[in-house]
Amino acid sequence: MNIINSLEWRYATKKFNPSKKLSNQQINTLKKAFNLTATSFGLQPVKMIVISDKELQEKLVAHSYYQRQVADASHVLILCIENDITTEYINSYFDLEKKIRNVDESVIAGFRKQLIDMYQNKSIEEKQLSAKQQAYIILGNLLTVCAVEKIDACPMEGFIPEKIDELLNLNEQHLKSVLMLPVGFRSDDDLMGGMKKVRKPLNETIIEIIK
Amino acid sequence: MNIINSLEWRYATKKFNPSKKLSNQQINTLKKAFNLTATSFGLQPVKMIVISDKELQEKLVAHSYYQRQVADASHVLILCIENDITTEYINSYFDLEKKIRNVDESVIAGFRKQLIDMYQNKSIEEKQLSAKQQAYIILGNLLTVCAVEKIDACPMEGFIPEKIDELLNLNEQHLKSVLMLPVGFRSDDDLMGGMKKVRKPLNETIIEIIK
Repeated sequence: MNIINSLEWRYATKKFNPSKKLSNQQINTLKKAFNLTATSFGLQPVKMIVISDKELQEKLVAHSYYQRQVADASHVLILCIENDITTEYINSYFDLEKKIRNVDESVIAGFRKQLIDMYQNKSIEEKQLSAKQQAYIILGNLLTVCAVEKIDACPMEGFIPEKIDELLNLNEQHLKSVLMLPVGFRSDDDLMGGMKKVRKPLNETIIEIIK
Repeated sequence: MNIINSLEWRYATKKFNPSKKLSNQQINTLKKAFNLTATSFGLQPVKMIVISDKELQEKLVAHSYYQRQVADASHVLILCIENDITTEYINSYFDLEKKIRNVDESVIAGFRKQLIDMYQNKSIEEKQLSAKQQAYIILGNLLTVCAVEKIDACPMEGFIPEKIDELLNLNEQHLKSVLMLPVGFRSDDDLMGGMKKVRKPLNETIIEIIK
């Protein structure tokens, strides 16, 4: 199946088969794909919570406007941003880069200083907004990886972040939930599964300037 | 090559081979993939400009902090948000859904009203912010599709949107540029191409709650 067929196959799965579980290998693919996503300056300001615990998943329902997919999905992925990107955080990125790439401080010192200065000039709100945007890149990557791997998924902005943060003690971990992605297998009787995709024609969404 | 190998293969290409062009088939894949991306409520508040015009690409350089990849890449994709999501815009989405899915107004009337009310209560800033987040989902999708198709790409937030909007007359089209993605083929001597990826270990970025 080519990539376009895969993207045609996927849809926002509202009804999962609650008795079908993703394999460890499938979950490992999603974890690795998450971690490989491109982020601004490579700072990875997003963590992913992987939940597979029916009791806890049932508790997510009330905080997700009673959408059952969080309970019925095999796993629920929750993307959380770091509450702050501090100088210490940025330094730990560069220390990691030095270790992995075996480069000398002199090579990266200029960029280290530039990035620290840039982040010191940002407000907390600006830093959180930027981190949240990176979470959306991750969501876009994960949806496509799911499609390629024939894993059903439902991208969700529709939940109450404060309630999720409280339930999972995210404040203590300096994290804020921003996006959810239940993953698993569609139920055979999911009405949405049989419906045609609604998309504007390409000539309405694409502007070409070709010479 | 499996999907993880593909994601390992990709990197933010800073130096493109200016003499290698993507085929029409490759560009068509990117256009279709763009259009198939999931967006909030399916509203597709993002258009994509596809540029392949060396003279125009050279003009992009000054507005992109003098990053040469916008000039040297085979094509430059620019993601632009709709300036506003009006009631008329939402109605045109539902009219399209009715046509494609052949459903009666009675089936969608409730959701139509709900969505119109929701958007009427949002400020322009909130609507633009939401549209921008959808552009980041598209970026995440396109980066992964590029990786699968062995197309090099460089995700870019680093440009001056107002200058790009002016250059391309985007205001007239009620659009604002938010992200850029030069695509093409890496130059053999791109220093970044040979470098190891810098990523935190999975046990630092993933929290598992499995029962």
